[in-house]
Order: sequence, then structure tokens, then C-alpha cells
Amino acid sequence: MLRVGQRYVRDDRTLTHLCLVSRALGAEAVYLEDAEKDVLGTLEEVNRTWGGGLRVVLGEPWKKVIRDAKAEGRAVVHLTMYGMPLQDRLEQLRQLDRTLVVVGGPKVPGKVYHEADYNVAVTSQPHSEIAALAIVLHEMQNGEELKRSFGKSRLRIVPSETGKRVIEP
Amino acid sequence: MLRVGQRYVRDDRTLTHLCLVSRALGAEAVYLEDAEKDVLGTLEEVNRTWGGGLRVVLGEPWKKVIRDAKAEGRAVVHLTMYGMPLQDRLEQLRQLDRTLVVVGGPKVPGKVYHEADYNVAVTSQPHSEIAALAIVLHEMQNGEELKRSFGKSRLRIVPSETGKRVIEP
Repeated sequence: MLRVGQRYVRDDRTLTHLCLVSRALGAEAVYLEDAEKDVLGTLEEVNRTWGGGLRVVLGEPWKKVIRDAKAEGRAVVHLTMYGMPLQDRLEQLRQLDRTLVVVGGPKVPGKVYHEADYNVAVTSQPHSEIAALAIVLHEMQNGEELKRSFGKSRLRIVPSETGKRVIEP
Repeated sequence: MLRVGQRYVRDDRTLTHLCLVSRALGAEAVYLEDAEKDVLGTLEEVNRTWGGGLRVVLGEPWKKVIRDAKAEGRAVVHLTMYGMPLQDRLEQLRQLDRTLVVVGGPKVPGKVYHEADYNVAVTSQPHSEIAALAIVLHEMQNGEELKRSFGKSRLRIVPSETGKRVIEP
């Protein structure tokens, strides 16, 4: 997941949500142009506590991230409310082997639309890049990502009907 | 959608995202215990500009919202990382006719777990209540919500492959 186009006002909570959703729904790495050390610290702590090996790459310019992804054979999927409806592109997206999902902030450069292989909208209504990312990751993986194991971890939740059960495995 | 359990630090951006996702994915109403007037203003403005009639109810205690929902025949679906995996409850959830989806903040009272008909987890990993809400609304409606029309509006997006096209219908 690559996030492009920060808000003028710092927006670490949204960025943290985007990264945590990426991790929970199976992304290998997140590319952040310019994050507070706080965000990085949170993600390292979550990896340590809950497992998995999400990679966090800081400070690489978005053009380079997109160029490198394409060179690796990844399709670039840009999420934008102006794009084509997800449901009309889903068949194609599900056939992609490796992808870079680009999430735009409000200051997304126009060039991102042209660099992307797909500009995809989760509804054409204004809502949340976090929600759009979640639905796209979920649909591209056919819901299989919900069953993912995070391997060795310090804590693990045991699902329960009405309580909170956390173990140290 | 009912949001229960604010953070100590005000958290209007997360709350705004939750409300906008609810609207975009077809909720009829959102119940906020205690929102800044800002959030309400944003939602009214979005309704006016982009259509639809999302109702925003402020200041009703969560117990009353849940009690009234049950009296109306709604099933109460509480989203929590401690709950049962979404994929194991989906068949039941899809058969529900009317629901109240409860989204907990970090300060969710234990009672909510017991009042809920379903405690459901979108992965047992920490991520984002916005993402969990999006995936649950999407799955409960079998993706049909993506095709929803918002009726009369001041602006409308015309989906496009690489640009931004907005019309005044």
C-alpha cells in the first residue's frame, strides 16, 4: 500500500488506520512518503505484539515506488471516488497476481491517475480511504485474507461469543 | 450505526469517517452519543451536495438506542476484534432483515457485549473500526450497496478511467 498526497494538517490517525488495515488484510509492505515517527513506532509495536512482518518503508518518493512496483510486475490500483466502479473491475482485479494499491489523500497529483493501471471507486460517494482500502483488499482476495495466520506473536485473541479472551501463546 | 465509547481525546475525524462510510454503504441513520457540531455540519453538507437522506441522531444514550432497535425488531451486531470471525457468522448475518450495527471505541462498556445479538470480528487483529464497519456493511448486503442511487443531488460523479468528472445533474 502506498499513500500519496498528505493533507496540510497532519493526519496521523488516518495514516495509522491505513497501515493497520493493510497489515490486518494481508499487505506485505506500506510506503509512506512522510510519516511521523509515531506511526512507525505504532506499527513496529503491533508487529511485535500481534505477529506478522509488515514492512514499513519511509520517505521514498511516490514516483519511485510506482516505477519500482511496475518493474517488479505489479499492477497499480489507485483508489479514488472518481474512478470506475469496483464491481465493474473486480473480475480483472482478481486475476492480478501482484499489486500496488495506491491510496490518495486530498492532495493527490493528477499524474497518479495516469500512472495507475486501474482507477477504482468504492462507490462514487465521499466517504473514507480507510473503508475503500478495506473493501478492495477484501474483494481482491475473495475474503481469504480474513483467515490469515500471523505466525508467532506475543498475544493472540481467542474469538468469543460475548467476552474478551486474550492469550499469550 | 451506533458509535459507543468515545476516546478521551476527541476524535472527530474517525467519527466523521464512520458516519460517511455508513451513509455511502446504505445506512439509514447514525446515532452519536456526543459529537461536535462539526461532524453534524459535515454530514448535513454531504447529504445536501451528494444526495441521500442519512439521518443523524445526537445525544441519545446507547442503552436507549439499543433498546429501541430491539423493540423495532432489529438485530444488534457489535463489531469487536474479540468477537467471532465474520466469515463464520456471515450466513446468519445475511438473513437478518434489519440491524443496528454497533461500533465500539476503546472505552466500550462490557455491557455492550452482552446486549449485542452478535459480537463479530473482522480478523482478530487490531486495525480500524472504519475498515471493520465497511467490510461488514458490504458483506451483509452482498455488495449490492455499491450500486445504490442517492437520488437528487447537487453534484454527481461520472466514473472515469483516468480523470475526475463531476456534473451538476
